[in-house]
Amino acid sequence: MARLFKKRYHPPGTAPGTLTEHTPAGNAVRITAMLYDAQETHMLPENALGSLPEPKEGGRLWVHVQGTPDTDQLNQLGRRFGLHPLALEDVANVGQRPKIDQYDQNLFVVLGMPVLVVDELHVADISLFLGKDFVISVCEGAEDPFVEVRKRLQNGGGRLRQLGADFLFYALIDTVVDQAYPVLETLGETIETLEVELLERPNRDMLGQLHLLKRELILLRRQLWPARDLLSQMMRNDLELLHPETLGYFRDAHDHAVQIIDLIESYRDITASMLDVYLSSMSHRLNDIMRVLTVITTIFMPLTFIAGIYGMNFVANDKSFWAMPEIRTTYGYPVVLGVMLVIAVGMLLSFRRSGWLR
Amino acid sequence: MARLFKKRYHPPGTAPGTLTEHTPAGNAVRITAMLYDAQETHMLPENALGSLPEPKEGGRLWVHVQGTPDTDQLNQLGRRFGLHPLALEDVANVGQRPKIDQYDQNLFVVLGMPVLVVDELHVADISLFLGKDFVISVCEGAEDPFVEVRKRLQNGGGRLRQLGADFLFYALIDTVVDQAYPVLETLGETIETLEVELLERPNRDMLGQLHLLKRELILLRRQLWPARDLLSQMMRNDLELLHPETLGYFRDAHDHAVQIIDLIESYRDITASMLDVYLSSMSHRLNDIMRVLTVITTIFMPLTFIAGIYGMNFVANDKSFWAMPEIRTTYGYPVVLGVMLVIAVGMLLSFRRSGWLR
Amino acid sequence: MARLFKKRYHPPGTAPGTLTEHTPAGNAVRITAMLYDAQETHMLPENALGSLPEPKEGGRLWVHVQGTPDTDQLNQLGRRFGLHPLALEDVANVGQRPKIDQYDQNLFVVLGMPVLVVDELHVADISLFLGKDFVISVCEGAEDPFVEVRKRLQNGGGRLRQLGADFLFYALIDTVVDQAYPVLETLGETIETLEVELLERPNRDMLGQLHLLKRELILLRRQLWPARDLLSQMMRNDLELLHPETLGYFRDAHDHAVQIIDLIESYRDITASMLDVYLSSMSHRLNDIMRVLTVITTIFMPLTFIAGIYGMNFVANDKSFWAMPEIRTTYGYPVVLGVMLVIAVGMLLSFRRSGWLR
Amino acid sequence: MARLFKKRYHPPGTAPGTLTEHTPAGNAVRITAMLYDAQETHMLPENALGSLPEPKEGGRLWVHVQGTPDTDQLNQLGRRFGLHPLALEDVANVGQRPKIDQYDQNLFVVLGMPVLVVDELHVADISLFLGKDFVISVCEGAEDPFVEVRKRLQNGGGRLRQLGADFLFYALIDTVVDQAYPVLETLGETIETLEVELLERPNRDMLGQLHLLKRELILLRRQLWPARDLLSQMMRNDLELLHPETLGYFRDAHDHAVQIIDLIESYRDITASMLDVYLSSMSHRLNDIMRVLTVITTIFMPLTFIAGIYGMNFVANDKSFWAMPEIRTTYGYPVVLGVMLVIAVGMLLSFRRSGWLR
Amino acid sequence: MARLFKKRYHPPGTAPGTLTEHTPAGNAVRITAMLYDAQETHMLPENALGSLPEPKEGGRLWVHVQGTPDTDQLNQLGRRFGLHPLALEDVANVGQRPKIDQYDQNLFVVLGMPVLVVDELHVADISLFLGKDFVISVCEGAEDPFVEVRKRLQNGGGRLRQLGADFLFYALIDTVVDQAYPVLETLGETIETLEVELLERPNRDMLGQLHLLKRELILLRRQLWPARDLLSQMMRNDLELLHPETLGYFRDAHDHAVQIIDLIESYRDITASMLDVYLSSMSHRLNDIMRVLTVITTIFMPLTFIAGIYGMNFVANDKSFWAMPEIRTTYGYPVVLGVMLVIAVGMLLSFRRSGWLR
Repeated sequence: MARLFKKRYHPPGTAPGTLTEHTPAGNAVRITAMLYDAQETHMLPENALGSLPEPKEGGRLWVHVQGTPDTDQLNQLGRRFGLHPLALEDVANVGQRPKIDQYDQNLFVVLGMPVLVVDELHVADISLFLGKDFVISVCEGAEDPFVEVRKRLQNGGGRLRQLGADFLFYALIDTVVDQAYPVLETLGETIETLEVELLERPNRDMLGQLHLLKRELILLRRQLWPARDLLSQMMRNDLELLHPETLGYFRDAHDHAVQIIDLIESYRDITASMLDVYLSSMSHRLNDIMRVLTVITTIFMPLTFIAGIYGMNFVANDKSFWAMPEIRTTYGYPVVLGVMLVIAVGMLLSFRRSGWLR
Repeated sequence: MARLFKKRYHPPGTAPGTLTEHTPAGNAVRITAMLYDAQETHMLPENALGSLPEPKEGGRLWVHVQGTPDTDQLNQLGRRFGLHPLALEDVANVGQRPKIDQYDQNLFVVLGMPVLVVDELHVADISLFLGKDFVISVCEGAEDPFVEVRKRLQNGGGRLRQLGADFLFYALIDTVVDQAYPVLETLGETIETLEVELLERPNRDMLGQLHLLKRELILLRRQLWPARDLLSQMMRNDLELLHPETLGYFRDAHDHAVQIIDLIESYRDITASMLDVYLSSMSHRLNDIMRVLTVITTIFMPLTFIAGIYGMNFVANDKSFWAMPEIRTTYGYPVVLGVMLVIAVGMLLSFRRSGWLR
Repeated sequence: MARLFKKRYHPPGTAPGTLTEHTPAGNAVRITAMLYDAQETHMLPENALGSLPEPKEGGRLWVHVQGTPDTDQLNQLGRRFGLHPLALEDVANVGQRPKIDQYDQNLFVVLGMPVLVVDELHVADISLFLGKDFVISVCEGAEDPFVEVRKRLQNGGGRLRQLGADFLFYALIDTVVDQAYPVLETLGETIETLEVELLERPNRDMLGQLHLLKRELILLRRQLWPARDLLSQMMRNDLELLHPETLGYFRDAHDHAVQIIDLIESYRDITASMLDVYLSSMSHRLNDIMRVLTVITTIFMPLTFIAGIYGMNFVANDKSFWAMPEIRTTYGYPVVLGVMLVIAVGMLLSFRRSGWLR
Repeated sequence: MARLFKKRYHPPGTAPGTLTEHTPAGNAVRITAMLYDAQETHMLPENALGSLPEPKEGGRLWVHVQGTPDTDQLNQLGRRFGLHPLALEDVANVGQRPKIDQYDQNLFVVLGMPVLVVDELHVADISLFLGKDFVISVCEGAEDPFVEVRKRLQNGGGRLRQLGADFLFYALIDTVVDQAYPVLETLGETIETLEVELLERPNRDMLGQLHLLKRELILLRRQLWPARDLLSQMMRNDLELLHPETLGYFRDAHDHAVQIIDLIESYRDITASMLDVYLSSMSHRLNDIMRVLTVITTIFMPLTFIAGIYGMNFVANDKSFWAMPEIRTTYGYPVVLGVMLVIAVGMLLSFRRSGWLR
Repeated sequence: MARLFKKRYHPPGTAPGTLTEHTPAGNAVRITAMLYDAQETHMLPENALGSLPEPKEGGRLWVHVQGTPDTDQLNQLGRRFGLHPLALEDVANVGQRPKIDQYDQNLFVVLGMPVLVVDELHVADISLFLGKDFVISVCEGAEDPFVEVRKRLQNGGGRLRQLGADFLFYALIDTVVDQAYPVLETLGETIETLEVELLERPNRDMLGQLHLLKRELILLRRQLWPARDLLSQMMRNDLELLHPETLGYFRDAHDHAVQIIDLIESYRDITASMLDVYLSSMSHRLNDIMRVLTVITTIFMPLTFIAGIYGMNFVANDKSFWAMPEIRTTYGYPVVLGVMLVIAVGMLLSFRRSGWLR
């Protein structure tokens, strides 16, 4: 199960902007940097934060950090690109709420990216900085989500190379937002499978599955909801670093974020309805069980009672005519058996007629 | 069941505006174009996207694409009418959230149109472009919803021919929005039928039906809710392509969209109340079953016990006066039977009096 | 039951403003017109739409149509008073959502008026037009709600004759809004009666009653909610046809509309709580039934078992000392009966002590 | 129980501002008036509405009406202080929604004041008028809530005498708003007591108590919610009659109103959770009952069956070796009894092991 | 359990700004004051409210009151720093709703600080005043939350000494807001533990735990929700006492407050889902119990009936061939036992096949 509380935080009272070492030693951080302009792209040596060149006139620099950087790396990045200490603290303390912060020289955005690893949902933090001629992206975890964007950049296709750093910034955000689609598609299929099973043959394992589904939707909603406001804020605000042309593209990403929230909400409504179906089917099952019990009891109780009557020992009183004269008749036994049969069949018929035997 | 996740999407990281071939080969696309002005209408040859003429001064062109166009057709449309790549991508990737995008030269609107096919609800994507002198409509699926509008145009009736392309644009949107009325009427009747049945003779098939109804309402709401905002945005905004006179008509369409949402919401409230009725009736049924069981048990247990008493073999001890002297009396047997009858009748009367035998 | 879907609509694609004949032939429409000014009132001949005079300087004309007018009558009204085709269409198609539309020369308002007919709730459409010197009111159904206003006008009392057409317009709207009070008073009493009964002696007919109550509240809310927004819009907007003095009165009507919604909301909250009470009382009842069953079973099972023991035929083995020696003792039978009595009384006492016999 | 619908209203269609006699004859109305300025206070003769003096320069007049005034008294007040007929109508028709109305010369406020009388909640209407140099307060019911304020005024303490009529107006509103605190404190204690009892020994009387609690919270919320908006409106609006200095005090009253709503909302959340606890404990109880039944049945059924076996009369067939040879053995009876004991103890142990005997 | 109603209030009608002695005699109040500027810090003698010096040019004074001050101390503070009587009243009356009040010379903020003491949640009131060159903090309870801030100040680190009193003000608010993180982390872990247990082995103690969890979340939400609005108000408003540079830091605190509310909301959603799981598992348990009962009853009832048949005394009638001839056959007894075995095994098999024996 994904953790309910994931946020990394300092003890209350710590100075804002303090960077503490959280990263476990074994967690490799991989830093790739790329210089590009309209004509060409140039990959810089890996993990060489100390020697990042200035992009030439018209060139842009994209630094991507895969994994949570350590204090040292963050300080290097901060000094080199003039990043605000509060922003660096947010990069270090994963589990941030998605948000946008505008600083003097750059724009800082945190987003949550949902990933399904072996059917378990995780939300990785993505931090992005946009400056006049650079973009810095930091992605928690081991898998680089921006491979596709890097290829597009190297293949030189279209606007990504022509337009400014803000378009790369958009392309990264768009990639992060769109990651929710395959996750939601998988969740949608899981829900539909469960739905069909639930309507056809409900069983008790479904309850746990439903709870885990709802839990994932709750956590997903908490992580993705703010992205919607963030993107609409980006479109409305008068952010100097974003060109008007790029804003149109952000509107597209915003539409996606809104649709993703819509999907999550309707998934939640449907799982709520599924729980009702589940509970009702439990109550059906109980009714069925009780019906069987009642039918059996109602049929056999009178029969057993009759057998009990003729098991009484009044017959031992052979002096009285009134002591169980039935026993002394020739056909007493078969008549009693016949009466029992009639009672049993009659009960069954009456149960069937009133719909108890369905 | 309608799919929960219908949206077609590119792998995250794909360049915005990329068009990929989704349409299965067999799915015929039918393109009809019509030139019209205040005096006359002129149908152009079918599927001739390549040779669309410029409308004359005062004339308008309406291109309708029935089915999802392929990349080639989209590119032709894009080049001919100057459509934005992001809009074209949205046309290709069905499952869009209804939205309005304003581009330099034209207005792009996506709407969802609910259709009931053999009692199953589908929502088809409708994409509409409005330019200065053209309207392009793209409708997913096989059935053309705009037959009636085309007839009105050809019969030359009223404002549709007199007013500009924006009025045709309105007429198409109005048609799409109003498609929800027959669907909601059918749903309303289904709900009422189920309601009456539920109050009179609840049975377990209703649970599945209720769930499917709620599911349809959830999906319908997700698809139609944005139309409301979209239309109010259209009325408020200062969109140059819409004449003030047409805006009044959009207010009418907006009122319809609001009423449709109101209807869906009250349908949902009513199905929620129906589920409560259903659950309560299940619990009634259980109470009924248990009452029968208890009545039967309570009557026969004491009787069987009495029979058991006189089935004991103490009578075999013929040396003791205290060994079941009742058995040796003359009227022991009928007296015991009489006592049993009195107990049974007494129990029945006491059950009736306390309302257990209803 | 009131219909869930009441709206009359054209087939999608029909031209806006189209009037179709809906009125069944037998449905009498009664049109009364009245000229009035500060000095006097003058009733015009009934149903004479064709010959409506112009009011003199300072005079006002009030045309009231009781019943849904036919196409012909609507066209006459439209031509005579310059009404917009969309407004006329809304008058013809009953089942509108309450709304306000401002046209060049007049103001158009649709409201829903709740009426209780033999304990069944209906919502009638009221359409109102306000012009510079006229008011037109159209009321669905047979019963004229404005009798009282007409009397006040004829008796010459106060502001109604002194102030302009807009005050009559207000008086009609106020009358329609206030119609909800008696309906809500009746509903409130119904709820309270049901509440007391539910807390004292819950029975299963209440479930249907509760559902119908909730249903009525859902439909009522759908019809009355928009009136609130409509009236606040009327107060805020800069509508030329309404004098500032009249606006104060509209504020009063708005306060009433808000209070009516408040009442409906708290009625809904209370019926929701009542359903919980109902469900719990069902579950109590089940517990009671099961307790009786368990008490009976627990008492008689051991007794019957003991009787069964001494019903065994080991006694027939008269050669063994170990074959049921109890039977051969002198006081075996009364001792066994005594033991049974002790068990039964002991069980009853233990049940009473642990609260099972309440 | 407090009434759901308390509002007094005119038949729809009555002229606005009509005053009708509602007050039952026996309901004594007590009118106290007080002249005060920074130096002194002067109580005027009681119930002397006809002869109210003009306050001197710098003096203020406070008229307090305890009980619902009759038409005559309202008309006198209206004429003397220039009050609007709509406001007077609202004073007469108790059951108003809290609201603020600004008229030319004065401000009119209606508030609901919750009072607990013998554990039953009532909400009394308080109407307040503020003029340039007078305050009129009308309080439904018999108990004067403003005794404390009158004392403060007479004791000459602080701002109340120094500042204008608007500060007295504030002091009265503050008193009314703060009346909710003791009520909510009592409710809070009732809830906590019920909560503890519910968690420790749930019983069925709690259901009715919970419903009545929820009902009171629903009605209280309906009455107090509007006070919040009213006070924030008072702070925002540019009401000439309120001095800037007094506005700060209104902010304080507003904070209280907001906190009161917060408290009501969390009380509602907690009672909702308590209902869940209650329902679950009912279901526990059922499980317990059924467990007892099942344990008893499961133990005695096999035993009774075994006794039944040896009660069969095959023993009578003394010619066959196969006819119940067990009976003819020496130790048959004690062996069978032993077997029964083993079965019973085994079952009990297995029940205990699987947690059924808790 | 934390109290539902904690607010301390005056009897309604008391003059605003009245200070009453609430503090129990034994509750020690500890007042620490510190003078600091960019160069140095200077601790003043404890509890010496009477002799607080003026800070020098460029110096700031921080007075911290640990515990609820008595009337005397409040009056001293008020006179010395020019605090508003309403603010002082709010400090004295703990249980305030978090709020911000702007006065002429200073800013007054009340916040709730959640603390977990031995697994029980308490919310302490924190009142803060910001003046041009002073900060006053008052913290209910015994534990000083600002120890860390004081250390940072004394160690001279960074902005806290360099920037104005408003940055200290921010640092204190940030500390209070961040106190929610450890509390939420603990709650999150409690929820997860309960969740796992609930899915694996639900038992009835969980119901009380769930209720207490929900209760804590409800109270926590009521206390922390307003902090969000308060901080966004602080950022938006044009408060002169806050420098633009500090505002950026407040944005960070605001982001934290928003994330905290998000966490509380998702905790509530998850506990709601857990209750559903719990209720369903209760209903499962009932089904299991009933299944055992039904299986036992269904197997033994027919067997006991058969035994009953052959316990009838018709065998005593040795004159009739029809009187239980089975008994007189050689293999009657083993055949009957065999039939019983077949019935029992057949029933078991059929139960297993239909899934009743899981």
